[in-house]
Amino acid sequence: MSDELRRRAWAYLSRVAESPSPELAAFVAKYGPVEAACRIKGGLAPPELKGRVEARHEVDTAADDLDLLDRRGGRLITPDDAEWPQLAFTVFGSAKVQEKESGRAPLVLWAIGPARLDRVAARAAAIVGTRAATAYGEHVAADLAAGLAERNVAVVSGAAYGIDGAAHRAALGVDGVTVAVLACGIDVPYPAGHSALLHRIGGSGVVVTEYPPGVRPARHRFLTRNRLVAALSGATVVVEAGLRSGAANTAAWAEVMGRVVCAVPGPVTSAASAGCHALLRRDDVHLISRPEEVVEIVGRIGELAEDPEHPQTPLDGLSREEALVYEALPGRGTRSVEEIAVAAGIPAEQVLGPLALLEIAGRVQRREGRWRIARG
Amino acid sequence: MSDELRRRAWAYLSRVAESPSPELAAFVAKYGPVEAACRIKGGLAPPELKGRVEARHEVDTAADDLDLLDRRGGRLITPDDAEWPQLAFTVFGSAKVQEKESGRAPLVLWAIGPARLDRVAARAAAIVGTRAATAYGEHVAADLAAGLAERNVAVVSGAAYGIDGAAHRAALGVDGVTVAVLACGIDVPYPAGHSALLHRIGGSGVVVTEYPPGVRPARHRFLTRNRLVAALSGATVVVEAGLRSGAANTAAWAEVMGRVVCAVPGPVTSAASAGCHALLRRDDVHLISRPEEVVEIVGRIGELAEDPEHPQTPLDGLSREEALVYEALPGRGTRSVEEIAVAAGIPAEQVLGPLALLEIAGRVQRREGRWRIARG
Repeated sequence: MSDELRRRAWAYLSRVAESPSPELAAFVAKYGPVEAACRIKGGLAPPELKGRVEARHEVDTAADDLDLLDRRGGRLITPDDAEWPQLAFTVFGSAKVQEKESGRAPLVLWAIGPARLDRVAARAAAIVGTRAATAYGEHVAADLAAGLAERNVAVVSGAAYGIDGAAHRAALGVDGVTVAVLACGIDVPYPAGHSALLHRIGGSGVVVTEYPPGVRPARHRFLTRNRLVAALSGATVVVEAGLRSGAANTAAWAEVMGRVVCAVPGPVTSAASAGCHALLRRDDVHLISRPEEVVEIVGRIGELAEDPEHPQTPLDGLSREEALVYEALPGRGTRSVEEIAVAAGIPAEQVLGPLALLEIAGRVQRREGRWRIARG
Repeated sequence: MSDELRRRAWAYLSRVAESPSPELAAFVAKYGPVEAACRIKGGLAPPELKGRVEARHEVDTAADDLDLLDRRGGRLITPDDAEWPQLAFTVFGSAKVQEKESGRAPLVLWAIGPARLDRVAARAAAIVGTRAATAYGEHVAADLAAGLAERNVAVVSGAAYGIDGAAHRAALGVDGVTVAVLACGIDVPYPAGHSALLHRIGGSGVVVTEYPPGVRPARHRFLTRNRLVAALSGATVVVEAGLRSGAANTAAWAEVMGRVVCAVPGPVTSAASAGCHALLRRDDVHLISRPEEVVEIVGRIGELAEDPEHPQTPLDGLSREEALVYEALPGRGTRSVEEIAVAAGIPAEQVLGPLALLEIAGRVQRREGRWRIARG
């Protein structure tokens, strides 16, 4: 049995049922792709699969589809290939998500671009968000994506307008790897205004879809695509999202598949951040403000974000008594030990010790038996 | 024993040791305020209290202090009074806060203003934040404070520039009750630029402090004052705060005293929100975006915030099959049942049922045996 025959069978199977189909996956697992394709084409699908394949089982455009893919320099990634990413699509718990669509793995992946998908998925984060992004959201998405790409984390997104586009572009801008996951065929320029962007991603990263050529985007395909975005990524970061958005759906997929969900806060006056704030109300969602915090989640063990610097104050490192004495000194002018004692509310004989330590530390000065705060 | 004698004794005790002093509180509990004052004035403080009162025990300005308070229309609130708020100052857990300063109740409270402190504290929220507030922060503080005041929640804050001032002013602006808690004597105009604001608060709400007249603000007094802000409030809302700020200290007090800590998110690009985001990373901190969410915490049981409205989409309420069929229809033009079946990936005989239901719902239309999306 030639590899080309298997490849044709996979391509045929990719179109015969809407992806993902657990019934088709089970059938292929039983018979292998070639025999499974023959049986379905011959009208011999078992009852549980018949409904899924009946409308399309006589449609075989596999050869044309693969020609198109070859002409564009693409490849069909199947479980036969070393590049096939071993992703966990197991869905934990949430009946709500399971009702809508099974969390199963795609049957195959149509891909264009030099990045190897299995390697990419080992160190990747999704950056997703609303198409109606604000300047703030696009700025933060770009900042996160560039920071991740510079730290060798692949930036996965959905190639939509707004947050997705800002993330892809920023990753490309620092020569990083970015992955666009489509809800349509690899030859369908969607959204139309991102044709050039998708071409650039296919030139240095990878554009990938579970849908065969020619398939148009549809709402249920966006929702299905979102699970693949989440599955390819160790963490999903929602940068801006309305209360009801595709990004929130991707976050839901990430959660039920056991990936880490992250969200970026924004102004509470911005509807574009309302979905992020709804996510952040939950205990298990990480608040993200810097790329390092995402690397900490998707990176190697011990790859920790440094604490941001805290501003310093003159009282840092002082004991309670030293602080009381220091604070009892006036902003200008001097005080005697007795005056300090009254102001600080501690006995005079307990004032001298702290004063001496503060003098050694260069924080206070003595002038003719009186004390003042040291300047400069 | 006249009430005036007790009042004088409380006033003397209020100045003799820096508040709060657990040693002084224990001594007053044992002997009552009058005998305790006599003993301390006579140099008879027990060893554990001596250090606390030694510097000031000969200073008795109680009569003058009370005169000043009377002239300003104020009152000394002591545990003798019905207005004394029964606040829990119990500190749970955090050794860090305990080390700095005990979480004990103030000995007395110096107050100016018509609002009764015990009633106010029964339904109050603190709104606190950085002096270096942004326009965003001041807007949100004002919006929250006005929304709380309109719902009969008292707005407690520290009268500082920035967030505090915006909160007080907004509460006054809707004729609500607001409480300013000072880190200095009630006669000390601090900050100077808020003299008029403090006067207005004293005219309709209440200005309150545990420090006797003339006491200057100092850093340790701000930290001590913050515990009183937190104690008077069912919840503390941090609107904007740097990574190191007094507001974060108030939040820490609220937490260790068992009050609810809330924070408002903001742009991750804003240093003024960094402290809020640090708080929101913790599981026990509530993210606040609307005043109703604070009322839900400090209000009566069952006083719940309504869910914000979610935007609607044409697919709302559709079954999976109906959604697939609906999405298989083109944006413009018509399709036959067979075309819909192929596009949706379901058998033709399973297309008619959903189509009929969609037609009844007015979402699709039939034209000469073909189907299209219903407009308008």
